[in-house]
Amino acid sequence: MMNSSTLRPDMSRARFVAVDWGTSSFRAWPMSADGMPLAQSRGPEGMLHCMTEGFEPVLRQHLERLGAPAHLPILISGMAGARQGWKEAPYLQTPTRPDELHRGAVKIDALGDVRILPGIAQRDASRPDVMRGEETQLLGAVRGDFSGLVCIPGTHSKWIRLETGCVMTFSTYLTGELFSVLGKHSILAHAVEPDQPPLPDAPAFRSGLDAGMHRGLQEQLFRLRAAQLLGFEQRGDGAARLSGLLIGAELADAGRQYGGNGPILLIAAGMLGQLYEAALRQAGWDVETVDAEKAAQAGLARAAANLWGEHF
Amino acid sequence: MMNSSTLRPDMSRARFVAVDWGTSSFRAWPMSADGMPLAQSRGPEGMLHCMTEGFEPVLRQHLERLGAPAHLPILISGMAGARQGWKEAPYLQTPTRPDELHRGAVKIDALGDVRILPGIAQRDASRPDVMRGEETQLLGAVRGDFSGLVCIPGTHSKWIRLETGCVMTFSTYLTGELFSVLGKHSILAHAVEPDQPPLPDAPAFRSGLDAGMHRGLQEQLFRLRAAQLLGFEQRGDGAARLSGLLIGAELADAGRQYGGNGPILLIAAGMLGQLYEAALRQAGWDVETVDAEKAAQAGLARAAANLWGEHF
Repeated sequence: MMNSSTLRPDMSRARFVAVDWGTSSFRAWPMSADGMPLAQSRGPEGMLHCMTEGFEPVLRQHLERLGAPAHLPILISGMAGARQGWKEAPYLQTPTRPDELHRGAVKIDALGDVRILPGIAQRDASRPDVMRGEETQLLGAVRGDFSGLVCIPGTHSKWIRLETGCVMTFSTYLTGELFSVLGKHSILAHAVEPDQPPLPDAPAFRSGLDAGMHRGLQEQLFRLRAAQLLGFEQRGDGAARLSGLLIGAELADAGRQYGGNGPILLIAAGMLGQLYEAALRQAGWDVETVDAEKAAQAGLARAAANLWGEHF
Repeated sequence: MMNSSTLRPDMSRARFVAVDWGTSSFRAWPMSADGMPLAQSRGPEGMLHCMTEGFEPVLRQHLERLGAPAHLPILISGMAGARQGWKEAPYLQTPTRPDELHRGAVKIDALGDVRILPGIAQRDASRPDVMRGEETQLLGAVRGDFSGLVCIPGTHSKWIRLETGCVMTFSTYLTGELFSVLGKHSILAHAVEPDQPPLPDAPAFRSGLDAGMHRGLQEQLFRLRAAQLLGFEQRGDGAARLSGLLIGAELADAGRQYGGNGPILLIAAGMLGQLYEAALRQAGWDVETVDAEKAAQAGLARAAANLWGEHF
């Protein structure tokens, strides 16, 4: 199940191992002193897997696979620091600065010097919210004095407002999870073709976006099915239309809360990044995109420098 | 799996058998000449079951269970008339009158005189929609010259605007299905206690309604989970809050489309009926409630009279 580069890099250049440990994925990179990944090992051993199988054996296997020298410091971000994770790294609380993340890192008694970065919580009863992982991507993607709006799409999409490098407020949208759950477990399973993923220039994606932005989501979801029953649309359009509806509803609500039509930093990769780029542009935003994986690597490198010094 | 009254009624009074055949449920009532049910047989043998097991054997078993005389006419409404059902009863199209339903009934060559009533389609590319079953409840619940708004909550909630007895336009909301699917298959499975169904006077239902009516649904769904992680709410509140959010979002959107604060006829039963009554009242509607099962029986009785004459 693991997957790593076949080239054996020069591990003598590695200064630490950066780990992005999500709910359902694991990625590790030995990092050079100048913050570049020297190799990669990834697998599906996210928090859900490790809650039963253990975290340390998974990390150890990936380190062996990489041929990483023993006792290289290891810095982890993501769900490994959740309450159900390896060891809880209590949330920093808004307003807070991503360049302070290292101050909340917790140390694990295993494999030498292993630390887990905290997430960020918005401990406000009227708008409670949490993130674990995205705060590290922020640290890697924005300058220390950044002011503006950031969107990080995914299973749980994040919209984050920063002021002079400080996370002021954020929102999570269940967009990616709704796409997956509705396509598998609802009546829309009949209306969505799993082998035809949405494409950003598909007319069904574009019209779905428009409907999602301007009409009620629960009604539009059923209309997707009805349109096919009545012969107005094809099953092959279903995934694109569903994706458009859900992203459109997210953008409309986030636009109301965070202001639309301005500049926005998108931290994303692959087809999901292309869908959000197209959607944000159609909705009038001025988008700049940063690769999500590079942002995670850069964030872990910055936090490592803050933690262990520039030349550890 | 079947369930029928133990009293053997006087079947000599039965004039026809009324059947409400849904996606996942079957209900049959031998009906008297004055449109009253004489007995009941119900089971989980809805369309999904019968697509593999066959429709005729299920109907035959329930008729035997009821002790219904052979060759009593049988009138069916609901998903048995869908394309994937027993025999397709093509949709009537809006604008159309529920008291014309019998004109679209299709005849089955089995068990004597068996007919299936059609559903209604809104064949409009900009707002495609379909119903099967609710049109028969409408026929039973409203007078032939009724003008006004009707809400029929359920897995797929219907909002229907009638003018002088004619269905002009309608919308379907995926509310009930979202409640079920999110509570089982999403991250909200951790936040919803299946043994604690929502109650209409629960504070979490009331505050969920308010949030669902005024804020974006995808964001509020994640906040439900975050509120529990951060200790603001308990898991026991999850189902009530989720139900409130989804019903609130439905009411807000339907209110925008169909006008809020006016009189509304609610065709519903049980706890779901109580939740919608409370929600509609909180949102300012003037609610009158009709029992959903009685509406189905009365609708089938009226359609039978239209089909076979008052004294068949």
